[in-house]
Amino acid sequence: MTDSNILVINCGSSSLKFQLINAQSEEVIAKGLCERIGIEGSKMSYTPTGGEKYEAVTPMEDHTQAIRLVLSAITDEKMGVVKSLDEIGAVGHRVVHGGEKFASSVLIDDEVLKAIEECNDLAPLHNPANLIGIRACMELMPDTPMAAVFDTAFHQTMPKEAYLYGLPYHYYEDYKVRRYGFHGTSHSYVSRRAAQILGKDYEDLKTIVCHLGNGASISAVKNGKCVDTSMGLTPLEGLIMGTRCGDLDPAIVEFLCNKEKKSVQEILSVMNKESGVFGLSGGFSSDFRDLVSARDQGDEGADRALRAFSYRVAKYIGAYTAAMNGVDVICFTAGIGENTSLVRTMVASYLGYLGIALDEEANKKRGEEIFISTGESKTKVLVVPTNEELAIARETVALVK
Amino acid sequence: MTDSNILVINCGSSSLKFQLINAQSEEVIAKGLCERIGIEGSKMSYTPTGGEKYEAVTPMEDHTQAIRLVLSAITDEKMGVVKSLDEIGAVGHRVVHGGEKFASSVLIDDEVLKAIEECNDLAPLHNPANLIGIRACMELMPDTPMAAVFDTAFHQTMPKEAYLYGLPYHYYEDYKVRRYGFHGTSHSYVSRRAAQILGKDYEDLKTIVCHLGNGASISAVKNGKCVDTSMGLTPLEGLIMGTRCGDLDPAIVEFLCNKEKKSVQEILSVMNKESGVFGLSGGFSSDFRDLVSARDQGDEGADRALRAFSYRVAKYIGAYTAAMNGVDVICFTAGIGENTSLVRTMVASYLGYLGIALDEEANKKRGEEIFISTGESKTKVLVVPTNEELAIARETVALVK
Repeated sequence: MTDSNILVINCGSSSLKFQLINAQSEEVIAKGLCERIGIEGSKMSYTPTGGEKYEAVTPMEDHTQAIRLVLSAITDEKMGVVKSLDEIGAVGHRVVHGGEKFASSVLIDDEVLKAIEECNDLAPLHNPANLIGIRACMELMPDTPMAAVFDTAFHQTMPKEAYLYGLPYHYYEDYKVRRYGFHGTSHSYVSRRAAQILGKDYEDLKTIVCHLGNGASISAVKNGKCVDTSMGLTPLEGLIMGTRCGDLDPAIVEFLCNKEKKSVQEILSVMNKESGVFGLSGGFSSDFRDLVSARDQGDEGADRALRAFSYRVAKYIGAYTAAMNGVDVICFTAGIGENTSLVRTMVASYLGYLGIALDEEANKKRGEEIFISTGESKTKVLVVPTNEELAIARETVALVK
Repeated sequence: MTDSNILVINCGSSSLKFQLINAQSEEVIAKGLCERIGIEGSKMSYTPTGGEKYEAVTPMEDHTQAIRLVLSAITDEKMGVVKSLDEIGAVGHRVVHGGEKFASSVLIDDEVLKAIEECNDLAPLHNPANLIGIRACMELMPDTPMAAVFDTAFHQTMPKEAYLYGLPYHYYEDYKVRRYGFHGTSHSYVSRRAAQILGKDYEDLKTIVCHLGNGASISAVKNGKCVDTSMGLTPLEGLIMGTRCGDLDPAIVEFLCNKEKKSVQEILSVMNKESGVFGLSGGFSSDFRDLVSARDQGDEGADRALRAFSYRVAKYIGAYTAAMNGVDVICFTAGIGENTSLVRTMVASYLGYLGIALDEEANKKRGEEIFISTGESKTKVLVVPTNEELAIARETVALVK
């Protein structure tokens, strides 16, 4: 593994994101994206670090073909960054749902493939795509070790009272209906990094991580273990997101089926794709830059969406402070968490009782690792840019060592 | 109104609870219950204060007939408590859903009846029954003023960010899909009473009321106004209850429809009637006396249900502390809140960070108005027995004055 590189793959149903990361220096050597795989107009973009971005519209019938193009680009004489595939020591695959089977990352073998497949049920949109990516890589790089890094694994330490719903217990026994949580790689990465920044022992710290991106979730990490998180059986629960509704009275599903004369599938689709700040703003935008600038110009819908979003975040911070009987540090990460200072201000406005005061100057910064609470603030508030690809690469390195 | 009495009526679809309360002394003069109205085996019980309880199985075809029996009992020569209906100055009716139309109690006229009817949609099981009770009373006591006291009214002060869901905004505009909240009469009564007990100004206090009965909800009352509450469009949302699930990933509704091959109506019925601590305990019991005693004997299902129930309560207390940016007093009320000291202990175990310490001796008491936090406790914890009937009577008196 000395001086070798890790290829990190994040496969969606028609897309594939990748990064090649050096195992030693942890630097990104190249990265890119394949889009519209299996659809007319397939497109690939590829950027070697320090070099120019290449973009090409080129047919990709399936994920195997997409990965073949990725490997060609990486090893290309002109735009490549390595001489041969031998310089790729391992591949780390993001896998969305590991169910209760995976509480940590694993090296992939036939048994693991089968177990991932058994979780398809719980993530019917994501796991099958992840598996396609894994199988395509195995075909093209049969001798390279592959790791599966699960979005759910970090949350497997939650106690029963946090992961069980108030439903008949046999639904858990028969169908594994429970809270799983997602974005685990990010929550793990950011909470560990916060401990380092504070110079504190990770095993002796109460941390709340607010991963606020287009998908958003919050987790409570106590003494190095996740004890609760806001996403549930699926990534629909919890915070108000870009287009997802988050927490709801479950009776609303039936109410809207009747009112709209739609099937439960159709209503769930609205809840996943047309709701969140997009829906609350009256269909204006799910992009927080749009929302903030519209609010600055007095737009009522944008203001409403931002207030509801921030209030929900504040309530979860309060709830998780109770879950851990206190909190030492609150971290903001991901697109909105790292960049939208207004949201951080609005959230912090509820949290004076925790001894939190924001450093207004620091809070104006975007996308950098920084304390945004004042020195006197009893509970610290940090911005920690997340890096899921690096976290996946690290997990992979640890497994192949 | 001097020295007259208020008849308080709480009408269900096949039941009717009543109390006759003296407007001056606020003493209960008589109370009772009609059950199985319109069903074979109708039964009435009636207890004049200080007297014996009467029970009779007697046909009641409809609510009018039930109320006729109630009025006969109250004015009966032998078991009655008043000489004639003239001694009933007004009737106070509990009405479950007042939608956005009613932010306080009102005297009932034709317009009010129409407005309540327009809310039927939001509470299809409750409002029609409430209306039947009102109309039956109006028929039998045409000259007596009637007041409607709404479960939802107290919560109408919530700000937008608390009452809006993360859904397309037009669902709120078109169908009034929003958080309403219930048990408002109890939350109002208990929060006011807490201020009196503390000798503090109600308008200057942050109070969390935990109304924990078979139906359970929590509210945050800041400076005399409700700012958030856990029940939503319907009484299904929020806490884990006796048989209701409370908060859920909304995607679970679709997941279970598919797994169980049931309609959304059937799944919602499971969520309302077979879930909660009853479901979590594996169908053992929804009665907390049963659960506590089974847990004491090592029953795993009962322990699981009690832990999940208490954890959810603690998380809401944390969330509402954030909603109000602090909390001065936490009140427990209703069946479980007043009587199940184990639940109070389990909830308080999460709340040390609020400066809460329980007085173990005081916490052993049941059903009385008492401080259960120690004198040093920064946030006070109180048990305040609720009295919805008295609160309805007071509202009624205030309206007819």
